Amino acid sequence: MCGIVAAVAQRDVAPLLIAGLKELEYRGYDSAGLAVLEGNQVRRIRAKGKVREMESLYQADPFPGGTGIAHTRWATHGMPNEANAHPHVAGRVAIVHNGIIENYAPLREALQARGHVFTSETDTEVMAALIDARIDTGLGLREAVLAVVRELEGAYAIAVISRDEPDCVIGARRGAPLLVGVGIGENFLGSDAQALIQVTNKMIYLDEDDVVEITRERVQVFGLDGRPVERETHESELSADAVERGEYRHYMQKEIFEQPRAVADTLESRIGPHGVLPNIFGVGGDELLAKVRGVHIIACGTSYHAGLVAKYWIEEYARLPVAVEVASEYRYREAVVPADTLFVAISQSGETADTLAAMRESRRRGYLGTLAICNVPESSVVREADLKLMTRAGPEIGVASTKAFTTQLAALALLTLRLAHERGLDETRYLALCEQLQSLPRMIEQALQLEPEIQALAEHFIPRHHALFLGRGVQFPVALEGSLKLKEISYIHAEAYPAGELKHGPLALVDEDMPVVAVAPNGPLLDKLKSNLQEVRARGGELIVFADKAAPMDGNPSRGSVLRVDAGGEFIAPAVFTVPLQLLSYHVAVLRGTDVDQPRNLAKSVTVE
Amino acid sequence: MCGIVAAVAQRDVAPLLIAGLKELEYRGYDSAGLAVLEGNQVRRIRAKGKVREMESLYQADPFPGGTGIAHTRWATHGMPNEANAHPHVAGRVAIVHNGIIENYAPLREALQARGHVFTSETDTEVMAALIDARIDTGLGLREAVLAVVRELEGAYAIAVISRDEPDCVIGARRGAPLLVGVGIGENFLGSDAQALIQVTNKMIYLDEDDVVEITRERVQVFGLDGRPVERETHESELSADAVERGEYRHYMQKEIFEQPRAVADTLESRIGPHGVLPNIFGVGGDELLAKVRGVHIIACGTSYHAGLVAKYWIEEYARLPVAVEVASEYRYREAVVPADTLFVAISQSGETADTLAAMRESRRRGYLGTLAICNVPESSVVREADLKLMTRAGPEIGVASTKAFTTQLAALALLTLRLAHERGLDETRYLALCEQLQSLPRMIEQALQLEPEIQALAEHFIPRHHALFLGRGVQFPVALEGSLKLKEISYIHAEAYPAGELKHGPLALVDEDMPVVAVAPNGPLLDKLKSNLQEVRARGGELIVFADKAAPMDGNPSRGSVLRVDAGGEFIAPAVFTVPLQLLSYHVAVLRGTDVDQPRNLAKSVTVE
Repeated sequence: MCGIVAAVAQRDVAPLLIAGLKELEYRGYDSAGLAVLEGNQVRRIRAKGKVREMESLYQADPFPGGTGIAHTRWATHGMPNEANAHPHVAGRVAIVHNGIIENYAPLREALQARGHVFTSETDTEVMAALIDARIDTGLGLREAVLAVVRELEGAYAIAVISRDEPDCVIGARRGAPLLVGVGIGENFLGSDAQALIQVTNKMIYLDEDDVVEITRERVQVFGLDGRPVERETHESELSADAVERGEYRHYMQKEIFEQPRAVADTLESRIGPHGVLPNIFGVGGDELLAKVRGVHIIACGTSYHAGLVAKYWIEEYARLPVAVEVASEYRYREAVVPADTLFVAISQSGETADTLAAMRESRRRGYLGTLAICNVPESSVVREADLKLMTRAGPEIGVASTKAFTTQLAALALLTLRLAHERGLDETRYLALCEQLQSLPRMIEQALQLEPEIQALAEHFIPRHHALFLGRGVQFPVALEGSLKLKEISYIHAEAYPAGELKHGPLALVDEDMPVVAVAPNGPLLDKLKSNLQEVRARGGELIVFADKAAPMDGNPSRGSVLRVDAGGEFIAPAVFTVPLQLLSYHVAVLRGTDVDQPRNLAKSVTVE
Repeated sequence: MCGIVAAVAQRDVAPLLIAGLKELEYRGYDSAGLAVLEGNQVRRIRAKGKVREMESLYQADPFPGGTGIAHTRWATHGMPNEANAHPHVAGRVAIVHNGIIENYAPLREALQARGHVFTSETDTEVMAALIDARIDTGLGLREAVLAVVRELEGAYAIAVISRDEPDCVIGARRGAPLLVGVGIGENFLGSDAQALIQVTNKMIYLDEDDVVEITRERVQVFGLDGRPVERETHESELSADAVERGEYRHYMQKEIFEQPRAVADTLESRIGPHGVLPNIFGVGGDELLAKVRGVHIIACGTSYHAGLVAKYWIEEYARLPVAVEVASEYRYREAVVPADTLFVAISQSGETADTLAAMRESRRRGYLGTLAICNVPESSVVREADLKLMTRAGPEIGVASTKAFTTQLAALALLTLRLAHERGLDETRYLALCEQLQSLPRMIEQALQLEPEIQALAEHFIPRHHALFLGRGVQFPVALEGSLKLKEISYIHAEAYPAGELKHGPLALVDEDMPVVAVAPNGPLLDKLKSNLQEVRARGGELIVFADKAAPMDGNPSRGSVLRVDAGGEFIAPAVFTVPLQLLSYHVAVLRGTDVDQPRNLAKSVTVE
C-alpha cells in the first residue's frame, strides 16, 4: 500500500504535494517521488527512503509547475530502490499508483512484443505505457485511462498526468482508497483526508470504479462506462493541527501512555452505573443485537488478536458461539454462516483492504447484519457497515498498534456486555462486570507505572534473536499480541503459544538462549501454567513472568524474573496485561536502536491485499 | 510424561524392566532408573540420558531380585539430572511416577515441618515420603498407597515397592495410563502394552482411580474406597516383533517413506468405486453422522494441524460449521455447543492427556456424540469414544510425527466425504473426490521422489536460525505442520503464517537471513500468494516455493528455488504437499547433526498436561 497526492492549482504544487505525502507515510516509506508539469515538460524527482530524502532533493533544485502527482511507496513489485519508485513515466504520461495489478504480466509481455522497453519491474510502468499507447490512437487522457482501467484486474488507486493536457489530473480507483479535495480555484486528489486537510476541508469520497477528472475550476466524476456520475461533497472534521510527540521520545511511547485517556474516551457516554447505554451501536442496534445467535469476527494483525479476546469473552458471558478468522483467509473461502449470525469487522484505519473486501463479501453470505469496530469515522469500513462502534483512540502514528488495540478491547467488552445482558446474564454479575470495565482506564494507568522495572528487564533481550510468549485462555491472544509487538519493532523472532501446546513441539526450541515470557493472571488456570513453566525451567530456559498481584507464585525463578501486575479483575485482565508487554517491546526496540515508529518493511494501514 | 514398568517374578527382573523401558522411550528419555528388592534391601541405579546409559551401569554390576520397578523420564519438575531421576526412595519405600501432582508444594512443606529432608526437587519424592509415613502408622503398603492417593490432586500413574513386603508391587492411576500384564507365575505393570508384549500378551486395562496389587500369583484391583473391583483381561494383538529401521538411517525417514502404504491401509475397505463404505465409523455410525449439524475438533500439536485441514474440507464440501481448538484450551473453558454438534478427538497415541480430558469434559457439554481418530486401537481415547476410525499407520517411533499426520488426513477425508454425501454434495463431484482420495497413496509415492532435490535444498538451512512458512487456505495448516517439523527436529525457529497476514507484522522479520518457505498449489489463490511472495522478494528474503506442477510460476526467483510437486487435485493437495516439507525438515536435521528420532526436550506421546 502506498500514498498518493495530486494537485492542479495556480500556485506551484510541489511543496503542497510534499506536505501531503508526509501525512501519508503511515502507508509506506520505502521510497517517494513526484512529477510536475512545467509547461509541456514533465519534471520528476524520486528517492529511496522516506519523504524527507526526496524533499531535500527538491529543495536543492526547486522547480515551478501547477499540475503534479506524488507518491510514497510500500514496495510490492520490485525492490524499494529509485528505479522502482513512482511516478513512472512512459511517453507523454506520468502515473502514481497504489495497489496491485494482477494481470500485469501478460499486458507487459504484449507491450514488449510490440517493442516497448521497460525501465522498472513494476506493474505501474505497464499502466503508464498502456495509457500512452491509447493516446497514440487519438484518445484524450481521460478516455485513455478509462479504456485501460477496463482491462485491469486487481486493486488500484491512480493519478495520471499527460504533457499534452497540462491543466488536468485524472484519478481512478478500485479496491484502494482515493478521494478528491475541493479547493478554491484549485483541486486535489489524495489517499485520505489527512493528506489534504492542510489545503482544504471539502472532500468527495469516490466509489468503486469511479474515474475522476480534476482541473483548477472543475471536478467531474465518471463511471467505468464513461458517463458522468454525481458524488456528494462532505466537510471533513479532521483538525489541521499536526499530531505532536510532545515530551515523548517516540509516537509509540506517547500512544502507550495515552491509553488510559483513549480507553476512557471509548467508554464515555456508553456505559453507566446501570449498564451499557441503549443503542450505542447505532440506530436500531439493540433491536438487531437481540436477534443474534452467533458471531463471526473478521480482522487482520493486531485487530485479529482483539477479535480472539472477544471470542473468549462472548462465549463465556453471552454463551453465543464465536468464530474469528483473518480477513485474507475468510474472503477467499466459502465460510458456513449459521442463521442469525452477526458479522463483526475490526480495523483501526477502516481501510484495511482484506477486511473491507471480507465485509463486502459477507453481504452475499446471509448475515443478520454487520458491525464495524473502527478508529476512523470517515473510513470505508464504517461507511459500509449496518452498525458501528467507534474507538476513540485519536490518530495513531506509530506503526506498531497500541492504543488502537486496547480501545478495540474496550469496544468489544461493550459488545460482550450488551450481548450477555440480552442473553440473560445474571444481573448482579452483569453490573459487577460493568463496574470492572469502568475501572479499566485506572488499571491501565497503574500498569504504566511498571515502566522503570520493564526498562531494566528489556536489557535481557538486547542480545536475543528469539523469544516464546505463553498464555492460557483469554491471555493467549494477549501473548500473541505481545509477541507481534516484539517482532514488529525489535525484529526479534517472537512467537506465541497456548502454554499447554508447548510440549507438543515448540519445547524443542527452549535452551538457555530462548527467553520465555509468560502471562500468568490469577484464576483456575494458574496451576496449569505453573506446571508448563516448570517444563521450561527444567530445560534451562530464562523465564519472564507477568503475574497477577493476587497470584501465588513461588518467588523468583532460578533464571528470570516475576513482575507483578494488578489485573483489576478477570474480565479486564487481557487489556491490562497488554500494557506491560507493549512497554517491554518498546524498550527492547529502543535499546536495540531500531526505528521504533516506522519499523522496516511495514506500513501503518494495509490497503492492499 | 514418563514410562513405567514393574514386575514380580521368580526370575531376576532387572533385564525384563530394562527391555520394557526401551519400548517406552517414546514417552521420554531425559533419565532412566530402576529399583529391585534383593531380600530386604532396595538396590537402585539411575542415570541421566537414555535407557542404554542406565543399562550399561547395570551390566557393569548386575544384581538379582524378583520384585522391581523402573522408569524412563521426561522432566516436568526439576532438571533432568541423576538426583531427580526415578525411582525415588524414602524410608522403606521406592516409587516411580508418571504425571504431575498439583498440590505437592503444601504436602512437601508439611513433611519438611515434621523434619523430613528431601534429596530431590520432585513431586514424586513427596509421594514416597507420604507413603512411608503412613506405613509408620501401622498400615500395609496397599492401604498406605490408598490413603495417600486420596490426598493427591493432579494426574499420576505410579508403581511402589516396600522392603517390608518384598513380594508385591502396588500400582495406581488417575489421568495417566497404567495397565497390568498377566503372566504365568509372574505379573507386570506398564505404561502401555508394547512395554510388556515381550513377556505376556494378556493385559488388564485399569480404570481411573484404580489401585492394583500384584504378586507372583495374583492380581487384585481396588477402587479408591479400598473395595475390590473386577476388571476384564484382554489378549493384545500387538506383535512382539521389534520395529526395525531396516535400510533407513532413522525411523523418521523410514516412516516418511511408509506413508503410501500407511495411507493405503487407512483407506482400505473403507472407500470404493461407489464412495465411502457404510458404517466405517462403527455400528450405527452413519445414522449418527446423518444428524450432525456442526463439528468441534479437539487435538494437540500435529493432530491439531490435521484438524485445521479438516475444517477447510468439511466447511467447503459438507457445508457444516467447524470449530477446531487445542485440547489444553478447550478443556478449561466453557465452550458453547450448538445443537447436534459432533465432537471429534484426534490423537496418534490415544493417550494424549489433554485430548483425553477434553473428551471426558465434552460428555457433560451436550454433544450429539464423540468420534475418535486414532492410531492405537487399545488406547483410552478409542475405548471411550462412541464412534472411531482407526488410522492404520503402524507403530510410529520417530518423535516428530509424519505418517500419523497423513493417515489422520486420510481418515478426516473419509469423514468429510461421508458428511458431504449425507448433506447432498452433487453425486458427480462426490465420486470425483472419492477417486481423488484413492489416488493419494500414488501421489505421495511421487512426491517422495523429490528427495534428492530436497536434500540439496536443505543445505541452505544449515546456517539459518529462523524460517517463515507461508500458505493460504487449506495449505495454511500444511505450512503450520511444516514449520512444526523443522522446529522439532532441527531446532530452527520456524513459524507459519497465512500468507495474507505477512504484511500485518511478521514482514518486519524478513531480511536476507530469513528464508521463506511457501506452499503454492494451483487454484484461485495462486495470484494472491504470488503478490505476497513479491513482498518478500522486494525485501531481499530467500524464497523456497513448493509449487503445483500445473501452477504458472515466473521461473526461479532471483534468490531461492521453485520445486514442482504434482498435487494430484485440490482435495488431496494438503496431504501431498506435506511430504516434501517432512523431507525438508528431515534432511535439514540430518545435516545439522541433531538427534532426529529423539529430539531434545520432547517425548512421543504427551500423557501429562
